[in-house]
Amino acid sequence: MSKTRVEAFSDGVIAILITIMVLELKIPHGDSIRALAPIVPAFLTYVLSYVYLGIYWNNHHHMFHATTRINGKILWANLHLLFWLSLVPFVTGWMGENHFAATPTAVYGGVLLAAAIAYFLLQSVIIADQGRDSKLAAAVGQDLKGKISPILYAVAIPLAFVREWAADAIYVAVALMWLVPDRRIESTVTD
Amino acid sequence: MSKTRVEAFSDGVIAILITIMVLELKIPHGDSIRALAPIVPAFLTYVLSYVYLGIYWNNHHHMFHATTRINGKILWANLHLLFWLSLVPFVTGWMGENHFAATPTAVYGGVLLAAAIAYFLLQSVIIADQGRDSKLAAAVGQDLKGKISPILYAVAIPLAFVREWAADAIYVAVALMWLVPDRRIESTVTD
Amino acid sequence: MSKTRVEAFSDGVIAILITIMVLELKIPHGDSIRALAPIVPAFLTYVLSYVYLGIYWNNHHHMFHATTRINGKILWANLHLLFWLSLVPFVTGWMGENHFAATPTAVYGGVLLAAAIAYFLLQSVIIADQGRDSKLAAAVGQDLKGKISPILYAVAIPLAFVREWAADAIYVAVALMWLVPDRRIESTVTD
Amino acid sequence: MSKTRVEAFSDGVIAILITIMVLELKIPHGDSIRALAPIVPAFLTYVLSYVYLGIYWNNHHHMFHATTRINGKILWANLHLLFWLSLVPFVTGWMGENHFAATPTAVYGGVLLAAAIAYFLLQSVIIADQGRDSKLAAAVGQDLKGKISPILYAVAIPLAFVREWAADAIYVAVALMWLVPDRRIESTVTD
Repeated sequence: MSKTRVEAFSDGVIAILITIMVLELKIPHGDSIRALAPIVPAFLTYVLSYVYLGIYWNNHHHMFHATTRINGKILWANLHLLFWLSLVPFVTGWMGENHFAATPTAVYGGVLLAAAIAYFLLQSVIIADQGRDSKLAAAVGQDLKGKISPILYAVAIPLAFVREWAADAIYVAVALMWLVPDRRIESTVTD
Repeated sequence: MSKTRVEAFSDGVIAILITIMVLELKIPHGDSIRALAPIVPAFLTYVLSYVYLGIYWNNHHHMFHATTRINGKILWANLHLLFWLSLVPFVTGWMGENHFAATPTAVYGGVLLAAAIAYFLLQSVIIADQGRDSKLAAAVGQDLKGKISPILYAVAIPLAFVREWAADAIYVAVALMWLVPDRRIESTVTD
Repeated sequence: MSKTRVEAFSDGVIAILITIMVLELKIPHGDSIRALAPIVPAFLTYVLSYVYLGIYWNNHHHMFHATTRINGKILWANLHLLFWLSLVPFVTGWMGENHFAATPTAVYGGVLLAAAIAYFLLQSVIIADQGRDSKLAAAVGQDLKGKISPILYAVAIPLAFVREWAADAIYVAVALMWLVPDRRIESTVTD
Repeated sequence: MSKTRVEAFSDGVIAILITIMVLELKIPHGDSIRALAPIVPAFLTYVLSYVYLGIYWNNHHHMFHATTRINGKILWANLHLLFWLSLVPFVTGWMGENHFAATPTAVYGGVLLAAAIAYFLLQSVIIADQGRDSKLAAAVGQDLKGKISPILYAVAIPLAFVREWAADAIYVAVALMWLVPDRRIESTVTD
């Protein structure tokens, strides 16, 4: 079974998610630069979520590049990942509108955690199908970043109720950690 | 005539439908966890519709994988299916906002029923074109699930006015029945 | 230059247009079947516009299937067509909300007319590039439907101010005329 | 690494951006032609932004056509360009709703400037990877238009506060300058 449509469908969903988040940036009614002030939190949250969805798209791109075939389990594991990603615009809007209040920040982390687990599941299902000696298994290797990220989210969620800014700092730090493109897969694949 | 664009267009429409449903999850104004309570019905409906659209995408993927050529009738049968699927966000929002009231629940079932019939028509048009000995005809076989589903929807629609939860239970049960990937086509195709 | 991306981009735009029109179907606040009554005009307009966009997608599919190469002029002629199609959701919503009042109905016809002219221009630019002996030129032939449609729209626009229902009848009639798949191109291409 | 998905993802994002801008054209409540008057500024801004996004899509199409391979840096440079383009609907809506007031007009120019810089960065990253002798490097050549545009935007931004219409005139002029398809790449590639 070909992987083209799975890639095309995932591209479509992520492209739409990344784009409809911008609809949460409500157009201010005034025409002065100060009219933009109330939407600064929403804008910052948008940037953060844009980077996260960009990371997922990039990693998804790398992962399927190293994938040779598809089965029913992979299709559903992929839809499961897209489900959690589809909640990103909602939690982004909630966190942005409430100026980084504790609960929305924790829920934001919860969605990131669920997406990270879904990504890990998808990766495992693919490796299980392609075999331990496959390109993807070699490329993923120890998958240190993939294992640290959910732990950091799990720390950030309760932390949001104590020091909200610390939870935000963790989200930003994890994003920065991933912004470095996944050279492991890239180099393995190019070789 | 190539099937690539039909697949790409259908992927696009389903990807957008699955994504704009999330816009019906109105961002709550409060910032407490209780502020999320009123949108729980909308969220549950979203999950159900997400799974249904995922099922349609998966089955569509399998069906076209086993399809070798396209004609004008198939194009329109496909657009007819996409039409009914395009109403899913609307009925999802209506059912979710009205906390599973009888009429929206019945109308939701009506759209599911129409989509199931449209899928069956599309499948028939393709098989008529490809021949009774085609891969798709073999893969579909008795098509038990395809025949049971519309019957169950037809039962659920009047039932919604008597025992609303029973109609919901049927929708969930049909979704679960389909969540098992269509191994028939998959195995026939892989062979 | 390859035509794949032009097709993919056009598929994307038309898929989104066909889908966001559904957002104009505002979810009714009541939960009875009568709550749906006020959106019946919007629903009927949606069906009409869905069919029109489906026709454009189908014809676009056929036209590019018979197209072998792309140049800068074709890219812009295609974006010009997509521009007029992008106004379809707006005029659909306006006509639907105003229960088929005269002016919105005429403006709807104006957008259909502009789209028909844009389609004709695109077709001419492609044929000019591919040559009078190309597959597309042969397939289009006399292009009777392509010439009658703009004339009928041009009749419907002033008619909307006299007999609004007659303008609607013309829109429906043109759509039905096109619903017959373009057998000319199909058969020429298949041969 | 293949460029197909990068193209498909970018096509998706730009197709959605070009389409959701139309959602900012709020459907007027009246049914007379005068009811359209208040949305004329929004419509004109829509046309301008549609042309700009069309230009970016066209140039992106040409650029990737002349690109032979992709790496992690290119992926992120592309996402960076898409980020600035994703703000176009927001600034379009803001400028359109405020009937071309000074600040929204300047911010609009700021987003155009950022997008132009992002495009230049993307082009540089690709050329750095493909080499000075690559097709793309040859096709881009002196890149006069690419260098003049950001300068003109930078002039338009402060100008918006003095003579607002002059800033608009610059935006329109730059768009017209680009509307001429990039014959350099086209001819180099075709040869």
